[in-house]
Amino acid sequence: MKEIRDNARKLMKGFCRVCPVCDGKACAGEVPGMGGINTGNAFKRNVSALREVTLNMRLLHDVTDPDPSSNVLGLDLAMPVMAAPIGGVSFNMGGGMEEQDYVDAILGGCKDAGVIGCTGDGVPEFIYKSAFDGITKFEGHGIPFIKPWEGGEFEEKLDMAAKTGCSVLGMDIDAAGLITLRLMGRPVSPKSPAQLKEVADMVHDRGLKFILKGIMDPREAVRAAEAGADAIVISNHGGRVLDHTPGTAEVLTDVAEEVKGSAIIMVDGGVRDGFDVLKMVALGADCVLIGRPFCYAAIGGGRDGVVKYLGTIMAQLKQSMVLTGCKDIASAGLHILYDAF
Amino acid sequence: MKEIRDNARKLMKGFCRVCPVCDGKACAGEVPGMGGINTGNAFKRNVSALREVTLNMRLLHDVTDPDPSSNVLGLDLAMPVMAAPIGGVSFNMGGGMEEQDYVDAILGGCKDAGVIGCTGDGVPEFIYKSAFDGITKFEGHGIPFIKPWEGGEFEEKLDMAAKTGCSVLGMDIDAAGLITLRLMGRPVSPKSPAQLKEVADMVHDRGLKFILKGIMDPREAVRAAEAGADAIVISNHGGRVLDHTPGTAEVLTDVAEEVKGSAIIMVDGGVRDGFDVLKMVALGADCVLIGRPFCYAAIGGGRDGVVKYLGTIMAQLKQSMVLTGCKDIASAGLHILYDAF
Amino acid sequence: MKEIRDNARKLMKGFCRVCPVCDGKACAGEVPGMGGINTGNAFKRNVSALREVTLNMRLLHDVTDPDPSSNVLGLDLAMPVMAAPIGGVSFNMGGGMEEQDYVDAILGGCKDAGVIGCTGDGVPEFIYKSAFDGITKFEGHGIPFIKPWEGGEFEEKLDMAAKTGCSVLGMDIDAAGLITLRLMGRPVSPKSPAQLKEVADMVHDRGLKFILKGIMDPREAVRAAEAGADAIVISNHGGRVLDHTPGTAEVLTDVAEEVKGSAIIMVDGGVRDGFDVLKMVALGADCVLIGRPFCYAAIGGGRDGVVKYLGTIMAQLKQSMVLTGCKDIASAGLHILYDAF
Amino acid sequence: MKEIRDNARKLMKGFCRVCPVCDGKACAGEVPGMGGINTGNAFKRNVSALREVTLNMRLLHDVTDPDPSSNVLGLDLAMPVMAAPIGGVSFNMGGGMEEQDYVDAILGGCKDAGVIGCTGDGVPEFIYKSAFDGITKFEGHGIPFIKPWEGGEFEEKLDMAAKTGCSVLGMDIDAAGLITLRLMGRPVSPKSPAQLKEVADMVHDRGLKFILKGIMDPREAVRAAEAGADAIVISNHGGRVLDHTPGTAEVLTDVAEEVKGSAIIMVDGGVRDGFDVLKMVALGADCVLIGRPFCYAAIGGGRDGVVKYLGTIMAQLKQSMVLTGCKDIASAGLHILYDAF
Repeated sequence: MKEIRDNARKLMKGFCRVCPVCDGKACAGEVPGMGGINTGNAFKRNVSALREVTLNMRLLHDVTDPDPSSNVLGLDLAMPVMAAPIGGVSFNMGGGMEEQDYVDAILGGCKDAGVIGCTGDGVPEFIYKSAFDGITKFEGHGIPFIKPWEGGEFEEKLDMAAKTGCSVLGMDIDAAGLITLRLMGRPVSPKSPAQLKEVADMVHDRGLKFILKGIMDPREAVRAAEAGADAIVISNHGGRVLDHTPGTAEVLTDVAEEVKGSAIIMVDGGVRDGFDVLKMVALGADCVLIGRPFCYAAIGGGRDGVVKYLGTIMAQLKQSMVLTGCKDIASAGLHILYDAF
Repeated sequence: MKEIRDNARKLMKGFCRVCPVCDGKACAGEVPGMGGINTGNAFKRNVSALREVTLNMRLLHDVTDPDPSSNVLGLDLAMPVMAAPIGGVSFNMGGGMEEQDYVDAILGGCKDAGVIGCTGDGVPEFIYKSAFDGITKFEGHGIPFIKPWEGGEFEEKLDMAAKTGCSVLGMDIDAAGLITLRLMGRPVSPKSPAQLKEVADMVHDRGLKFILKGIMDPREAVRAAEAGADAIVISNHGGRVLDHTPGTAEVLTDVAEEVKGSAIIMVDGGVRDGFDVLKMVALGADCVLIGRPFCYAAIGGGRDGVVKYLGTIMAQLKQSMVLTGCKDIASAGLHILYDAF
Repeated sequence: MKEIRDNARKLMKGFCRVCPVCDGKACAGEVPGMGGINTGNAFKRNVSALREVTLNMRLLHDVTDPDPSSNVLGLDLAMPVMAAPIGGVSFNMGGGMEEQDYVDAILGGCKDAGVIGCTGDGVPEFIYKSAFDGITKFEGHGIPFIKPWEGGEFEEKLDMAAKTGCSVLGMDIDAAGLITLRLMGRPVSPKSPAQLKEVADMVHDRGLKFILKGIMDPREAVRAAEAGADAIVISNHGGRVLDHTPGTAEVLTDVAEEVKGSAIIMVDGGVRDGFDVLKMVALGADCVLIGRPFCYAAIGGGRDGVVKYLGTIMAQLKQSMVLTGCKDIASAGLHILYDAF
Repeated sequence: MKEIRDNARKLMKGFCRVCPVCDGKACAGEVPGMGGINTGNAFKRNVSALREVTLNMRLLHDVTDPDPSSNVLGLDLAMPVMAAPIGGVSFNMGGGMEEQDYVDAILGGCKDAGVIGCTGDGVPEFIYKSAFDGITKFEGHGIPFIKPWEGGEFEEKLDMAAKTGCSVLGMDIDAAGLITLRLMGRPVSPKSPAQLKEVADMVHDRGLKFILKGIMDPREAVRAAEAGADAIVISNHGGRVLDHTPGTAEVLTDVAEEVKGSAIIMVDGGVRDGFDVLKMVALGADCVLIGRPFCYAAIGGGRDGVVKYLGTIMAQLKQSMVLTGCKDIASAGLHILYDAF
């Protein structure tokens, strides 16, 4: 991984320092770029909140070869991990790689490692085109995310996305409020429960399952499930839209308790390693999205870099399952955490 | 804003470093100057206390174009923000601008952006003269603050201030205790409730509304309202008079609950961006005063700098209202905060 | 004060850096020297604990010219502040001044400023001799401290001390446990309540009042008062004997409540300015001892330096009394603190 | 000690910086090496958790010459301190010393100072061979630890260890989950209670007492005691196997309460000095293991270095016993701690 990180540091110069710990301090305010918005506190708090969660080591049991696999939304995954939807290599990551190559590295590397990658949306249009082309190339093995556009733009893109062969599609509603897009005449916006239901119905009508990303409040989780979201992602968009939010790990358990059983719970924010994955699962997540680390992995090492990074995650996840006595993902829960929120 | 900040850094050299985050660390003890008194803890705590307040992101609603306007003390404001009363460019900010030019930049920029600026008082006399001249020039669009002088000095200045055309006038009682002024034979002092009532009556007799700035205790807020203050400002004078106080964000909710309905609640201390403005409003403020950032904006960019800074605040405020689901200022409250004090 | 501090920094080179904030970080483990023992945590915690205590600013009252004077153990003091007993200029402070000159600067400066200084004890014998000579010179205006020697050494020194004309004498029992002194054949030790009673009786028999310094536990405070101590000092010996203790400000209120009325409560530990003095009084102290800052003041500026330092403390104390509405020392209490321990 | 530390810093270059405070920050992620795994948080938290525990200073008693001796598992110790089992000088510590010399320095130094050292196990085989040879040389005065191997490897090594003359033997079950060993075809693993009982029986059958190291959960402590462990060690393996655990000091009291009386309680993790030893005892430990500091002591000063380090620990322990009023180890308890977990 060191070589990959060193290479990424060169290619992302001026956009990402590939710090020893990716915690949002050095890049605070660098949007576009890899940082959190404004003071960067929302990004930093994702990391610091998750750091406070600690694991109960347990060794008096018979778990020696744990099974980290999981079926999420009908997808068989080697572990409950996905690459989060991120787009815009040129303006966010320094342009050391073409958007299409980036998408292919993420989707291909994830597929090779037995998991799945999500793709981003945005302006200019090559972002979503590269995304859809990539998913088509990998025979639908990818989850396209579309922004919460106003008017007909969502449905147009949905039709394109449906042709990629994917079985699951997401909307990152946490992108709403980006006034810059509104000023460009391409408004994205929050959705009322009624509007969300229409969106979910549209997605379901294409035979796809629907993920809503951007929930930070238990009451909103209930509304999302009631409107038809098959899964929610607890996310503050990596701290890039609203400064000064709690970390996602802080709100995860409360949100999960509210909709457990009625929607799949996913989460991103500050996850860096396989120990973090187990902590998020123990707090209540069915699946964990990882963002920035996939950027260095893909830019520094391409598809192989993504595979190597996922190999590290897998080894750490299995090691932490052994050391906490979890024979499978379903066995993880609050009992393996010490003094959680 | 970068250019404005760079320019300010040059002009304020030796007085203000225009740090990436204005948090009172680098300038601790620099009074005169821009710092907090002594160890600077009271200034630092304003910033750190407000940083701990976090926002609940909420996106399942129909707020897409929120209205941040507010009527405060009869003034129609584009948003509930004012420039705090600060004077003494020469000895506090390095003298890179004349006092009158500074006052005009603040008052003019605020007027251009649809809000209003406050002016300071002090010794030497050009401070309040520049202030009153400025407000007169902008046809009363400014709020003069007068220090809590002993004897007849307050009333003398009040008469001058009343002629500027202003409709609201403030007293920054948090300036009391400045022993230096007492040693110069120009004592300022706390006021008993009876004395405060006399002051409020004098102000009301000139047809002006009265703001009392410098409340940090719920019991004092009640006394202020009973004595006739139309508004109070929760403030520790930017940490410049009494070291080791709590941050204003810590005491805001308790103070607000005590006098909500009987006096307008204003607050300053550590507010740097539009997200901070919404947090203060959610904690209970009707209006927010911002101090030091206006100094760099005015000195680095003049009236235009002030307008630009207010434009940033406005964009952040609207973005944060969308992302928390507040259609207007009255809709913000403790329910949009996560785990507040 | 800047000149005095700069001069001290030169004279104490290698022993004290005269840091901007004297917090025990740079000198951790430097014993002999000015630091806290071992990791320095006990010293650091004195400072950090006191920093957490914050003052309620209050301005709606008629206190404009507060009276900080206090009578402590029959001594009329301009404010409830004393110089803590510190000895050993040569091995602790770099030897930039003779022990006798140091003692005279402390005692003389304190007398000039209307307060009183304490003197230290130790090996070699010039420490206590300089101390007793100094107090004699200032006609008894000083408080000699004697270490908790085993055997007859305490009484011998008590007889010498009694001849200085002093009216109060202390024992710093927190010096016990210094195994180095035991190895030198000069053991100091804890005292049982019965032994302490003998000590107190001996002191009283010489017509002196008795201070016991080194209480950190409410139960020990009760034992001290019952054994005849007229005053106790809550102190961890500046963090120089037992690492990893709480800060004195943390235990002060609990200790004070236990013996209020039966013994005078004194405290040291981390007090740097007049705001800190008021905080300690509000937490329950009748009088505050200040240690290290007197070293720089005396070494950097001699007797005048001590007077200047006390002048700063006095100005800050009066300012903080005005700003919290304390007309005199007796008026300070927990009600002027925000959210104390 | 300074000379020893300076020498160690040279010999361990690239592996250990021998920092002023050994807190896991500089070496985070350096495994092999001296660091904690991954982010190093589990190592860092051992240190920070123990730092938060503070001692009640108490001086009104008759303890002047405390007795720090203790009998642990039939072993008469000058104080309740052991050197933790650490092996692999070449790949963890830079190879500045032969494994056998290292083992001899630890065992010999501990014996000289009246305590006892533990030895490590691992691959390559010279690690355990040096260990067993060393213990044999010191006539059984050492505690061999064997890893939780699968299959017959544990029993084979147990037979070898039994011939060294030792009376106590340990298993560091916290080494389980090291996937690297599994990949090398030498799997170590957790043990079910039934398997653990077999292990304990095997050890007892050889006439040895059995220590199980690696308990971090009160329920596991009960299982260990029920399965026949004579002692447990609360340990997260120095933060080297599972990142993001609580510090051992945080879980100690809860674990101790659960098995007090049915098993001897030992603990390691972040203990650096004699004050820390007393804190761990007060929290509930019968005996304390120290890890990394013995590495610098042995590598920097050989057997003498170990003796010198233990001399420092002893002096600090006695000093802290005097200053908290503990006449012997049994007298220490939660009452000498301020505001413990």
